[in-house]
Amino acid sequence: METSKIPHLLSENLFTQKIAGVFKRYPNQINNLLESDGEIIRLREHPPGYIVIKVDGIYEEIRHKLYIDPRLIGWMAVTVTLSDMAATGSDPIGILLSLQLVKSLNSGWIEEMQGGINEACEAYGVFVLGGDTNFDELFSISTMAISSLQEKVPLMRKTIMEGDLLFSTHPLGLGNAYAYSKYFDDSIEVSYWPEARLKESKVIKEFATACIDTSDGFFPAVSNLMDLNQLGLKMERNFEEIAHAAVREVQKNNSVPTWIFLAGPHGEYELLFTIPSRKKEKFLKACSTANWEPVFLGVFNSGNQIEFRTDGLKIKCRPSEVGNLFDEEGGDIQLYFQSLLKLHQEWLK
Amino acid sequence: METSKIPHLLSENLFTQKIAGVFKRYPNQINNLLESDGEIIRLREHPPGYIVIKVDGIYEEIRHKLYIDPRLIGWMAVTVTLSDMAATGSDPIGILLSLQLVKSLNSGWIEEMQGGINEACEAYGVFVLGGDTNFDELFSISTMAISSLQEKVPLMRKTIMEGDLLFSTHPLGLGNAYAYSKYFDDSIEVSYWPEARLKESKVIKEFATACIDTSDGFFPAVSNLMDLNQLGLKMERNFEEIAHAAVREVQKNNSVPTWIFLAGPHGEYELLFTIPSRKKEKFLKACSTANWEPVFLGVFNSGNQIEFRTDGLKIKCRPSEVGNLFDEEGGDIQLYFQSLLKLHQEWLK
Repeated sequence: METSKIPHLLSENLFTQKIAGVFKRYPNQINNLLESDGEIIRLREHPPGYIVIKVDGIYEEIRHKLYIDPRLIGWMAVTVTLSDMAATGSDPIGILLSLQLVKSLNSGWIEEMQGGINEACEAYGVFVLGGDTNFDELFSISTMAISSLQEKVPLMRKTIMEGDLLFSTHPLGLGNAYAYSKYFDDSIEVSYWPEARLKESKVIKEFATACIDTSDGFFPAVSNLMDLNQLGLKMERNFEEIAHAAVREVQKNNSVPTWIFLAGPHGEYELLFTIPSRKKEKFLKACSTANWEPVFLGVFNSGNQIEFRTDGLKIKCRPSEVGNLFDEEGGDIQLYFQSLLKLHQEWLK
Repeated sequence: METSKIPHLLSENLFTQKIAGVFKRYPNQINNLLESDGEIIRLREHPPGYIVIKVDGIYEEIRHKLYIDPRLIGWMAVTVTLSDMAATGSDPIGILLSLQLVKSLNSGWIEEMQGGINEACEAYGVFVLGGDTNFDELFSISTMAISSLQEKVPLMRKTIMEGDLLFSTHPLGLGNAYAYSKYFDDSIEVSYWPEARLKESKVIKEFATACIDTSDGFFPAVSNLMDLNQLGLKMERNFEEIAHAAVREVQKNNSVPTWIFLAGPHGEYELLFTIPSRKKEKFLKACSTANWEPVFLGVFNSGNQIEFRTDGLKIKCRPSEVGNLFDEEGGDIQLYFQSLLKLHQEWLK
């Protein structure tokens, strides 16, 4: 047997090198590629009070061809979990990457996706700490994020009080405006590159009583806050005032009611958070110092409904009435859109 | 509209309750189900020097119908990452569960799988900290484990010295004996419930220079240790002496060479680890105190090949020559088995 023909490296390791070798290493990670069965992260110098972890994937978005561009897929895989880290006010360290590749994918596609992951990691100042790559019959990608938290009391979704003010980091509705352009009107170009709101989170955590991201859209997020805190919400701004510019862009050629862009399920990855009214002035001053203008939305009350003005209507309902429609239609996009329009017709009566 | 018919809870949250509500909560986890965008873990009282994280899935094992029993699938999903935690000598805290369900799965199947996860968590003393569940066209499951590490110098795969002794936690070959029974001879019943070697790891980390698990089998694991440390290995025991009882069981009715059960790629999740010869006595004494008998395998040398006796043969080769065969056959199980037998014929010449 000609031993010269035998590669002495494991083919799996060469593959790992190819997939993971393109990412920068985290300086506080002890092990290099292949040197350990786990990813070992040094905490000794600055032991945090807590660590925060989260796993999330973008299965449905890929399967429903909402994300096709491999660079967007890479960017979003990092953004979805980092957005959760932002909602907890924690400082992200890095991600683990779980990748199921399909043999038919060409290397250019994979490189573009790696590029999207790299861009996101650089934008957020985090590192790919490790991962697991398999071949499967369908492509899928998920990430696990890990972050540290120094605060004594972690920011969660609870402890909202009656009278607390609800804000969002930026205008809402981009996620569904993008989905509408993909599914119903491809003449519109909607740029969808949501950012995990880590910078804003640093201000928010100093003042907020609760925080959640709008990964599933506004109504599902608000529904979670209301249920957990057993409170109602009165919106103080018309939905037209808080909607993202892309919503108006879509509405130029399509008569879609504004509230539908806030219904979910495809979110814009903004943060919704609550500020006690007595801290409002100081909070807004801190935002201004950080060159950021949050969007005031409404005030929590002792009820159990959301009250809002949109499309010339004044509505009071349970937010889950809107937030559950996608599931009720079995996740079928066409049926879901019809049921949104039907609900709008009912409201018009 | 009859509001009494409207569920005020988000259907997604009811689903999360159903999937995650069956698992015990970790006492040091701050948030309850749905209360945070991330899983918040308190470290303040005992800040570790390091944390160790790892993601792993069992995609190919499920796709190739090696694991069919939902209880085994649940057990293995936890075991594969906990085995990596054992190899780093760290103390596992818990796991995140990433689950892609298929709509056709019945609730009995899902409950069995949850049961397997629960049994594993109890056996290892860890908790399901959170997760992400989606519906997809194919079932898949992966877990991320997190553990803490108090030692000053983490145990990795490196720092093996010439003369160091190689041990395994228990006899080897169960993974491939099980695979053989599933693919080639269903008259044999091989019980496959590998255990992450966390108890043994507590002894190992006090003495070992390096450690790796045999998740992909013996040859790939040894190949990794040899490559990383640029060392050769002389096995001091015939493969027949270190093989698991299940290997002999399979060989009763099938003339399969013993070394083939150590070739991979389906592992037995034992730990391979190295002990400096001067520490051998103390190490064996500590094992004996822990009621555990490790399996002595061989000694590292300055070469770059593995030398072993098996099936009446004396072989010297690069371990990747064996470890790469599965990939070289494109992951086709029938072709792979043929190529193993072919290599055996070449060795007989």
